[in-house]
Amino acid sequence: MDLLFLGTSAGVPTRRRNVSALALIEDQGKGWFLVDCGEATQHQLLRTPLSAADLRAICITHVHGDHCYGLPGLLASAAMTGRRQPLLLIAPQAVHDWLAATRMLTALHLPFELRFHALEGFTGVAVGAWDIDAFALSHRVPSHAFRFRETRRPQRLDPAALAAAQVPRGPLWGRLHGGEDVLHEGRLLRSADFLQAAHGERRLVVAGDNDDPALLTEACRGAQLLVHEATYAQAQIDKTGQSWGHSSAAGIARFAEAQALPALLLTHFSPRYQAEAVRSPSIDELRREAAACYGGHLQLAEDFARFRLDRHGRLKALDQSGGAGDGEPQQERG
Amino acid sequence: MDLLFLGTSAGVPTRRRNVSALALIEDQGKGWFLVDCGEATQHQLLRTPLSAADLRAICITHVHGDHCYGLPGLLASAAMTGRRQPLLLIAPQAVHDWLAATRMLTALHLPFELRFHALEGFTGVAVGAWDIDAFALSHRVPSHAFRFRETRRPQRLDPAALAAAQVPRGPLWGRLHGGEDVLHEGRLLRSADFLQAAHGERRLVVAGDNDDPALLTEACRGAQLLVHEATYAQAQIDKTGQSWGHSSAAGIARFAEAQALPALLLTHFSPRYQAEAVRSPSIDELRREAAACYGGHLQLAEDFARFRLDRHGRLKALDQSGGAGDGEPQQERG
Repeated sequence: MDLLFLGTSAGVPTRRRNVSALALIEDQGKGWFLVDCGEATQHQLLRTPLSAADLRAICITHVHGDHCYGLPGLLASAAMTGRRQPLLLIAPQAVHDWLAATRMLTALHLPFELRFHALEGFTGVAVGAWDIDAFALSHRVPSHAFRFRETRRPQRLDPAALAAAQVPRGPLWGRLHGGEDVLHEGRLLRSADFLQAAHGERRLVVAGDNDDPALLTEACRGAQLLVHEATYAQAQIDKTGQSWGHSSAAGIARFAEAQALPALLLTHFSPRYQAEAVRSPSIDELRREAAACYGGHLQLAEDFARFRLDRHGRLKALDQSGGAGDGEPQQERG
Repeated sequence: MDLLFLGTSAGVPTRRRNVSALALIEDQGKGWFLVDCGEATQHQLLRTPLSAADLRAICITHVHGDHCYGLPGLLASAAMTGRRQPLLLIAPQAVHDWLAATRMLTALHLPFELRFHALEGFTGVAVGAWDIDAFALSHRVPSHAFRFRETRRPQRLDPAALAAAQVPRGPLWGRLHGGEDVLHEGRLLRSADFLQAAHGERRLVVAGDNDDPALLTEACRGAQLLVHEATYAQAQIDKTGQSWGHSSAAGIARFAEAQALPALLLTHFSPRYQAEAVRSPSIDELRREAAACYGGHLQLAEDFARFRLDRHGRLKALDQSGGAGDGEPQQERG
């Protein structure tokens, strides 16, 4: 699973960072998921290899515009460029109602089915190899985290089971690997008894806006990666006495440390934090604050940074689109 | 009045052209008007000197998303960056209703007043030096053109009137120029009798999507400039038998020629027309088609191209933002 950030700014876009959107890209094929869809997400997609035709599901964490105002345009353009496949949408009921109003009032015709799951009462859905469920967070409006669990993994033959059952090497192995139950010398060999997952289950959590990281305790159990907002430095929240329902870099880092999370990916930075470390306040202030509280693999996202959660659940920054994904200054890509 | 194009693509954005938006910038001060507001118009503004704080009015030609989906984000960001001044919005009633639904369903709080004029029954409004009125067009949904007339122009003293009335040169002239009626040697000299407009009335028409240019006949009377879509070449419409409610470059050019319009500015090009003249079909096909039918001052817009309608009503392409405004290939500008 790759993570490709399409927007990493909080509230308003800047020349370097668009508002929230994150693409989760399947290991094989072209399928991908979108978590949040701020305005101009479709514009960002034009600068990636991703196509709205291959989008499997859109997950919207909450109703604030910087997380959903790109939806009508993305859907309209998907329609105009030929999408006919149904599309899953997991979002607050209000987003559904807003899209319904948008379709009616702006003459938006979608020639594909939107399969809607309201977050209110959502119990999870299976899409391809992944199960998606959601956890309630704390923000100025109802907000959610999405957990992706890889419950359907590639299967390989289990050498120990084959040896224990004395299954002779040869075409038999291929048939068992292919899922076939085989009658062999009077014995019924069940494929399922000789298969095991090729690797462990990957779990990642992508959270919406949230001022109470502890609400993610259950969601993060066994997860290798948490993607979470770090809108402000703690000093800024202390100074203003106002978090606007957001977390500080320190707050979410302490949570990740307490959970012994292997990797933490921060995003959704207030535009007050400049990309250039020489200007103050800078993104580096958020990085230093988080690093002081968290000893795991810490990354700060930027637009078009791409990361891989490999089959072993390890996070790697990919050196793609000119970005090392670690927040170093780089050329404008807006 | 300057015209700064923020989006010149029809239907969907491309890497070079955003969807429709056009800024009309007053001669003096920072005030400006916005005609149409496709998705990511606020992003385009980040690459111009314009600020949403100085926006006087937004005019929306019709409800299609590529002309209005940028509204909620633009308004939200104006609010977040401190706008408190009322803002005029002239648009179809459905756009008003859509914004009302958006405000309610996405918890969008605007700390400034939206002064709404529905295009249904709109009879015009005066804003600063300009009167704005609207004319119905023909499209798949109700669509309008906006006419801007400069009815309040700078005043200067009329030398002939001063001479005829034998008003002696001196401080008296300054008082009359300043709008003061003066009692002079037993005569009441009325300021209004000695003032004249410093230049003629400028008129420009900015049209929405439209497949019947003749509907603009009255709007264009006395106008120096028409900004109009030229979504397709005529050959393309003839081949497909389908104009989707749009004009061809030839169609609108013939209308401008018949009206003896001094200047015609084309925009809203189908993404099928490539910016590079070496790729086919190209924007040059539209240019050639229009030029064959129209002998006036013809320009094809591109994103961030800036034009000036000077005080004498003459159109000039400004060499700004790296663009000559005449459709020549130029570097990518996002």
